[in-house]
Formats: sequence, structure tokens, C-alpha cells
Amino acid sequence: MGKKLTRPILLIEGGTRDADLRYASGFTAPDPVVLLVDGRRKYLVVSLLEFGRAKATADVTDLFTPQQLGLQGADRGRLSAWALALLKHQRRRSVLVDASFPLGVAKQLQAKGIRLTVSEAALFPKRRRKSSEEIRMITTAQRAAVQAMKAAVQTITNAAVDARGYLLKNDGRRLRSEDVRRVIDRALLDHDCMAQDTIVAGGAQGAEPHERGHGPLRAGQPIVIDIFPRHKITGYWGDISRTVVKGDPKPEVARMMRAVRAAQKAALSVIRSGVTVKRVHETAQRVLREHDFETTVKNGWGEGFIHSTGHGIGLEIHEAPSVNLTDTRLLAGDVITVEPGLYYKKWGGVRFEDTVVVTRDGCRILARC
Amino acid sequence: MGKKLTRPILLIEGGTRDADLRYASGFTAPDPVVLLVDGRRKYLVVSLLEFGRAKATADVTDLFTPQQLGLQGADRGRLSAWALALLKHQRRRSVLVDASFPLGVAKQLQAKGIRLTVSEAALFPKRRRKSSEEIRMITTAQRAAVQAMKAAVQTITNAAVDARGYLLKNDGRRLRSEDVRRVIDRALLDHDCMAQDTIVAGGAQGAEPHERGHGPLRAGQPIVIDIFPRHKITGYWGDISRTVVKGDPKPEVARMMRAVRAAQKAALSVIRSGVTVKRVHETAQRVLREHDFETTVKNGWGEGFIHSTGHGIGLEIHEAPSVNLTDTRLLAGDVITVEPGLYYKKWGGVRFEDTVVVTRDGCRILARC
Repeated sequence: MGKKLTRPILLIEGGTRDADLRYASGFTAPDPVVLLVDGRRKYLVVSLLEFGRAKATADVTDLFTPQQLGLQGADRGRLSAWALALLKHQRRRSVLVDASFPLGVAKQLQAKGIRLTVSEAALFPKRRRKSSEEIRMITTAQRAAVQAMKAAVQTITNAAVDARGYLLKNDGRRLRSEDVRRVIDRALLDHDCMAQDTIVAGGAQGAEPHERGHGPLRAGQPIVIDIFPRHKITGYWGDISRTVVKGDPKPEVARMMRAVRAAQKAALSVIRSGVTVKRVHETAQRVLREHDFETTVKNGWGEGFIHSTGHGIGLEIHEAPSVNLTDTRLLAGDVITVEPGLYYKKWGGVRFEDTVVVTRDGCRILARC
Repeated sequence: MGKKLTRPILLIEGGTRDADLRYASGFTAPDPVVLLVDGRRKYLVVSLLEFGRAKATADVTDLFTPQQLGLQGADRGRLSAWALALLKHQRRRSVLVDASFPLGVAKQLQAKGIRLTVSEAALFPKRRRKSSEEIRMITTAQRAAVQAMKAAVQTITNAAVDARGYLLKNDGRRLRSEDVRRVIDRALLDHDCMAQDTIVAGGAQGAEPHERGHGPLRAGQPIVIDIFPRHKITGYWGDISRTVVKGDPKPEVARMMRAVRAAQKAALSVIRSGVTVKRVHETAQRVLREHDFETTVKNGWGEGFIHSTGHGIGLEIHEAPSVNLTDTRLLAGDVITVEPGLYYKKWGGVRFEDTVVVTRDGCRILARC
């Protein structure tokens, strides 16, 4: 079984799904490419129009176009033909692939006698623990998120409130979720980051954790702001959430905010290398229960604390480890979000989120807000 | 074989790969979901924290959480378990899937006796021909791209030129690709669009079709500007390219620009329902050859016209039909880009691109620039 240890990794990746590709080769492209990682050697196949860029930026042992691998006609446009030609060139017939490997390509390779093993674990387990360089890049994205959060909160702070409780802009028109989102996304752009689904959700809208939010914002209601930019050059993500209330919150909302703050603080306090993610999640759950907030599910509708406490973050916005009820142990160098929340249709949502790096004896918040 | 006709379609999609999911259900989520399309009936499984949002926005016959399907423990987080439970609930054991279906999930379903057939064709062939509503949404994204293009060209027009040929901003500093890109991306944001890899590539950088461009811009050199925004709400894309020169282009660059303009015009003139994409591509190739521009490939490096003439565009930036050397026939309602280009290391790149809808007797440019 010595062969198993040296089985090369085959990747078909690129476009929007490019995390392993970037990690292994430093290259990224709008169209899919084929990468074979054979121990320390890496072989990349790209289309003719990516060759120069790949030559300049990809960290690989050898680079091919389909033409250079001898492919003709329609095969030049077929990823399965690229992969087959590369495996033949490297004299490999057995490869390790990821669970997300495309079934269509798998079938075509298998038909030609290639043996594919789906890896149970991550293809690049080292990707989970971030290097200091990676932490620097995540921190850059997170700093952009913090600047954008400050701009958003300032916008809400500056708003006037009319007799009916609506927030007003300088020009006297109602301040809408869309306005605040634009302030955020502009600030991110100024820091070379992009964001697709920035959340500014007021009142009942905030009870849906992934609702982007729309329409006029009102005083007295919680406004969930969740900013998760990706840096346009490095590809690393940041992630931060805050919940703010313009004016005085209703007592129940003030209680929710205190409880979530306490849950986040407690979860942060137990994080260190060696601790299970379950312990972190259960800590947040316990604190929220102690504050008398129940989690219930009825006919599909969940209320209370209805998601995990956090997720790993890096070249993907959601990556390992998930901070849920499993026995996964945290490792020094894990970068995770810590984001307990409460969601009730009657009151809306409250979430506080920071991104931290796990250390031997605790954790460090990246870019304080 | 009657069964084959009624075999339902199984989709595991979401996050950044969400085109078929949006098309079939109108729903989109940052995390993967499971969708079963059984004739006109559609069944969606989403996590607890997406239930309310899916209830409000997904156009499906029935909606489930993993809990509602009776899943316990770790199975609640496993997409293969979601799919299995849904298929059991619907009494289906044979499904049609896309070539990109994740191999890991496929293996787990097969191990439980589910039969998966990889569709040779697109799962939703109707997605290729756009409805008037879809054309409207693409046009909205395209209009944003046109506004951004105008802002970019204005920025270059307004620039001064120093003694060494560098473009200068108002503040006397050099105008860089990054500055123009920011102008573009801001304009897109103002129209609710986002862009990841906007291209502003001057001089030799433009010889790489997917090089984003960086550093100071110079007079006399071609500057390729390629803007492809996605509308944040609808998910539809736009795509436009122009090439500009500040001051007088070198004679060779002026020749390239005339040739590419002529190639685009010729390609546009042959487009209509029923024509093969090959005819469109060959028309562009022929015109460029007639203008004495050769396409060569040496050691992987390509020069000349090194990509296809265009691609379909809709919920994906690159979708069917590709305008290449195949015999695919254009259909009324296809929305495609028409973007011949020339790339020479010595001179840089020249590309002109518009997005058009194919009609019975020609094509119509969406949002003229």
C-alpha cells in the first residue's frame, strides 16, 4: 500500500471555485484548469490564452497548453482530455480527488482506466492552519471590513429620526438598507475588496440570518450588519458582524444584545489549541440559555440560536473547521469566526462576530472593531 | 424506456455555483442546497437558517429542512443525506444530474442504490434562450457596464501626459490601471453590480487576455478595458470591452484597431438564428487575416487572435453557446458576446466586445456604447 501514500492529487478547478488551486499553485483563472500535484511536483494545464499569465504567476514544476500535450480538435476544449493527456504524460493512472470533483470528468477518466479515489479528508490539510503570511492577508481583508463597518455605523449615527421612527438621510429622505450597503461596499472597494451579499437587515428582516435587508430602516429596532469581503488580489476573506440600534432599544432587544455579547465573550474565552469546537459552540449555547433565550424549531421555522458558532475562513468564506457540535479539535493557526446570534420573528436578529486566529493559549482577534 | 423521459433532475448547488438553481427555483444561497426537479414539480431542501428566506422567495412545490425529512445528528449537515432523504420521500431512485455533480455525493448515493445518469446536454436547455424578462435583466447589467466604460474613458480622456508619456491625474500623480479600475468598479456599484476582475491593461500587459492590468498607463499604447459586472440582485451578467489609446497610436496599433473593428462588424453582420457559431468565428478570423494579422503558437505562447469570438452570457458569465469552431446553430433568444481581439507581445492587446441578442433576421446590441 506504499503507492497510496504517493498517489498524486488531481484538481479540476478555477473560476469561482478556486481555493485549492490558488493554495497549491498560486494561480487563479476565470475558466477551469487542470492541476496535478505529485508530491512536491506540480503540473498545470491551461488554455492557450492563459499560458503567458500562468507562466508569469503559477508556482508549478511544469506548465502545458492542450496543444503542447498533443490534443487536437474538440479535445483541446475538453477538461477530461486535458486531464487524461497530463496523466499519460506523467505516467500516472491512479489519483486522489476531492469530493467535489465533477462526476462527468470522473466518468470519462474511469472509462479510460484511470482510478479515482475520493479523499475523505481535505486534499491539502495544511490549508486549514494559516501561515503568518496568510494571517496577514486575512487581516488585510478584515481591516477593510472594519473600516466599512465604521462607515456604516457612522451613517446610522448621523441619521435623523422622523416622527414615525424612520431614519432620515441628510436630504430628508428615508435611510434604507440599500443606502447603508452602498456605503459599506464602497468602503470595501476603496480597500481593494469586493462583497456580494453584505447584510444590513433591520427589524424582523434580521430574523433571517442570510437576508440581505431592504427598505427603510427604523429607530428602536436591531439592525444586523454583516460584512464579508474578499480581497480582490489575494483571494482571502474577512468577516465581521455587529448589531446596532438607533435610539433606545426595546427592553427585549437590549436583553438579546447583552446575551449575545456575553455568549461571544464566553466562546472567545474557551478557544485555544486543543479544545474541541463542540466545547466552544456549547459554551455559546449555554450562555444564551442562561440568559433565558430558548431555541425552538416548529414546521421548519427556527427561532433562537439557529446556526453554528462560527466557521473557518481563508481562501473560502466557509471552510474548515466548522464551530459546531463535532469533536474536531482546534489547532494553533486555525482562523475562525465567532458569531453567536439570536433570531426571533417578533424582535429581529442580533449577531456579533469577530474573526480570530487560534493560538496555543487562547486566540487573537484580527483587526479589532 | 418511458421512464427515461420522466427521470427527475437532481441538483446540488448554491454558493458561487448557483446558475441552474436560480434558474429552476429562483432561490440562491451562500451554502449548497438540494433541489429535485420532477417534471413541473420542484422540491428544495435547505438548512434551518435558510428556511424562512426560501419560504418567501423560492418558487418550489415543497420545501424541507433536514429536520423535516427526519434526519438526525451529523446527517443534518450532509448533503448526500439530504438528497437521499428527499429521494426516499419522493419515492425516486433514478435521477438525472449535471456533469459537474460532485463525485463524493454521487458515490454515496450510488452506494444506497440510487441510479445517477450524467446528462450529456444542459439540464435546463431552455436556459440558453433568454426570455424578454431575462434580456431585460442582462440589459440592466450591460447598461451598468456601459456607464462604467464611459467613466473609464472619461478618466483617460481627462488625464494629462507628462514628458515621458505617462498619463497624469489631476493631482499630478501617474494614472494607474488600478485607478481606472476603481472608477469602473465604483460606477458598477452605483448600479447595484459587482465585478471581480475588471481589466484595464495597457501596453504589453494587454497581450494577455485575462491580465487585469497594473501600474502606470502610458500614451500611445493600447489600453484594453474589459468590464463584466454581475447584478447583485438578479444574478445576470453583462460584458463589454473597448480598447483606447491616449494620443496618437503607433501605426501598427492603429492597424490592429481597424482590423478588430472590421472583424467585429463582419461577425455581427452574419449573426442570425440558424447560422452556425463556426460561421461567425470564421468570419472574424478571415477579416483579421485579410488585414494581414497572423495567429501563431510557439512553445505555448500564442499571438494573434487566440480565443473564440464570443460566449453565451446570462446567469453565468460564460455559458452556452460558445462562439467557436463547432457546428452549434444560433437560436433566436441566444445572448452572446462578440469580441474578436488581437494580441501581440510587442504591441499589446486590442479587443472590442458587445453583447447581443440573436434574432430571426440578425442581432440586436444590448445597451449601445
